[in-house]
Amino acid sequence: MTATLASLTDCITPQLAAVDKLFISELKSEFASVNALIKHVGRFRGKMLRPTLLLMSGRACGELNDAHVTLATVVEMVHMATLVHDDVLDEAELRRKGATINHLRGNEAAVLLGDYLISHSYHLCSSLGSTEASRIIARTTNQVCEGELLQIDNRNNFDLTEEMYLKIITRKTAVLCATCCSLGAKFAGASEEVAARLETYGLSLGIAFQIQDDILDIVGDARTVGKTLGIDAEKGKLTLPMIHFMATAPAEHRALLRSLLKSRDADKVDKIRNLILPSDSIAYAQNRAKQLVHRAKQSISTLPDSEARRAMETMAEFVVSRPM
Amino acid sequence: MTATLASLTDCITPQLAAVDKLFISELKSEFASVNALIKHVGRFRGKMLRPTLLLMSGRACGELNDAHVTLATVVEMVHMATLVHDDVLDEAELRRKGATINHLRGNEAAVLLGDYLISHSYHLCSSLGSTEASRIIARTTNQVCEGELLQIDNRNNFDLTEEMYLKIITRKTAVLCATCCSLGAKFAGASEEVAARLETYGLSLGIAFQIQDDILDIVGDARTVGKTLGIDAEKGKLTLPMIHFMATAPAEHRALLRSLLKSRDADKVDKIRNLILPSDSIAYAQNRAKQLVHRAKQSISTLPDSEARRAMETMAEFVVSRPM
Repeated sequence: MTATLASLTDCITPQLAAVDKLFISELKSEFASVNALIKHVGRFRGKMLRPTLLLMSGRACGELNDAHVTLATVVEMVHMATLVHDDVLDEAELRRKGATINHLRGNEAAVLLGDYLISHSYHLCSSLGSTEASRIIARTTNQVCEGELLQIDNRNNFDLTEEMYLKIITRKTAVLCATCCSLGAKFAGASEEVAARLETYGLSLGIAFQIQDDILDIVGDARTVGKTLGIDAEKGKLTLPMIHFMATAPAEHRALLRSLLKSRDADKVDKIRNLILPSDSIAYAQNRAKQLVHRAKQSISTLPDSEARRAMETMAEFVVSRPM
Repeated sequence: MTATLASLTDCITPQLAAVDKLFISELKSEFASVNALIKHVGRFRGKMLRPTLLLMSGRACGELNDAHVTLATVVEMVHMATLVHDDVLDEAELRRKGATINHLRGNEAAVLLGDYLISHSYHLCSSLGSTEASRIIARTTNQVCEGELLQIDNRNNFDLTEEMYLKIITRKTAVLCATCCSLGAKFAGASEEVAARLETYGLSLGIAFQIQDDILDIVGDARTVGKTLGIDAEKGKLTLPMIHFMATAPAEHRALLRSLLKSRDADKVDKIRNLILPSDSIAYAQNRAKQLVHRAKQSISTLPDSEARRAMETMAEFVVSRPM
C-alpha cells in the first residue's frame, strides 16, 4: 500500500522537491537561535498532504508553474503552524496531570514558532503578483481559527450534534484541503466552474479524512496508526461515532459513556472503546466517510482522464481504507 | 498632559473612529461563542498608537484615503495579536508559581484568539488592490517573531550586550512602528525618500518608546504607569539600565544584581530598584532614549509644516517624558 501511495505522486515529484527546498530556505533566519528552533518543525513534517493536493489539482487541470510551488509551500507552512499551535493546546492538557518547566519552555517556544510559520506563509504568499491567493488563504485561516475556537468551546459538551461536529471539522480540517485544490486548479488556468469542482473534492476528502481520523482514535491500533490514540475521549471531544452512540444506544449505555467521558478513570479509553465497538456507531461513521469519498470522486469525474486525476481518485479511497 | 495628547489627534479624528468601527466589524463571526471570545480583545485595546502613527504619517505627507483606514486597522490587529500571545507567555510565567485550570483555559483561548486576530489582519490587508502592503506587513511580522524568539532565547542571559538588546527591541517593538509610518506616507503618495524618512521616525520613536518602557519597569510607580512593574526582573529579561549597570558598576554591585536576578526573593524587584537607582545607569538609558527622540524629530524636519507634523514632534517628546 505504501509503495502504491508513493508512486501516486510520481507526476509531481520535481515540484514536491521544490516545495521542500523553498520551505527550508524561506524560514531561514539571520539568527542562529531562531534557526535552531525552526529545526524542531522537522518533527512535525509528514506526508505533505496539502502540497500534494494543491499540485495534483493543478496537474489535473493543466500545467504546473512557479506559483504552484510557492502556494504549495504556503499551505504547508499554514498547516505546520496549526500543528505547532495544536501542540500548545495538547501540551496544556498534558500539564493538567503535572506541570514541568520543560513543558512550559516548549509551550512558549511553540506559540512563537507557530507565529513565525504563519507570518512567513503570508510573506511568501504576498510575493505572488496578485492579492487573490492571499485573500483566499487568509479567509481559509480565519475559518480554521473559528473551527478551533468552536472545538474548544464544545469540549465536554456531551450533547454535541452531528451538525455542529461537521461545522467544526469542516473549518478545522477540510477548508484548507478545499483551498489547496481550488488554488491548484485556478493557477493552472481552470475555469471558475472547474475550480469549484476541485474545491468540492478537497472539502469532501478533508471531512472524510477527519471522520476517519476520529474513528481511528477510538478503534485504531497505536502502532499501526503511528500516534497516540484515545486523545478525543481524554479531551472530552465528542466525535461522530460517539455522537451517533449518544443518539441511538440504549439509555443505560449512553449514561455509561457520559460518565466514562467525565471520569478520570485510567482505563477510560479502553472502556469507551469496548462500549462503542459492539454498537453500529463505528459503521455509521465509516459509512458517512465513504459517502464523502464518493462525492469527492464524483466531483472530479468530468475532468479529462489523466495520471493526476487517477491519483486523486486513489487518494480519496485511501482516506477511508487507511490501516486500523 | 492628557488633554494635550488627546488634542494631538484632532486632525485624524474621523479616521480613528473609522478604524475602531472597521476593527469590530471585521472580527465579527457567525458563531456566538467566537464573538464572546473576541469581546476579550477589548481589555487589551489601548491608546491606538500604531493606527495613530500610520494616519498621522499619511496626514503629514498628503491626503488620507480609505486604504489608510484599512491599513491602520490591520496594524492594530497585528499589535493586538502580539499582545494576546505575549499574554500567553506571561501567563506561562504566572503558572510557574502555581497552575490553575482557569489559567490554562485562558491560555488556550489566548493562543487561538491571537491566531484569529493575525489571520483577520492579513485577510483585511489582502483586500487592498496590490500585494505591496501585505508584503511589507508580513515582513514586519517575521521580524516581530524573530524579536520575541531572540528575547526568550536571552532570558537569564546576564551577559546580554547593548547591541543584542537593541536588536531585540528593534524587532519586537520598533519595526511595526516604522512600518506604520512608512505605509502611511506611501499610501499618501510620498516619494521613496520621504517614506524612508518617516520610517526612520517610526523606528527611532519605537526604540525610544521601548527603552522608556524598560526604564519605567524599574523606577516607575505602578499606579501612575498603570500596569504591573518589575516584570523584566521577574522574567530574567535584562534591559538597558541593567545592561549598563552590569558593564560599569563596581564588581560587588554587579555580583549582587546577578544574584538578585537569579533569586526567588519576594522583594527582589524592590532590591534591584534600590541597587540601580543610585547609579547613573537610569540616566544613561534616559539619555539614549532622548537621542533617539531627537533623531525621530530630525528625520521629519524637512516635511512641510503642518498640524500633523507638529503632532508627531510632540508625540516623540512625550515618549521620553511619560510620567514615572
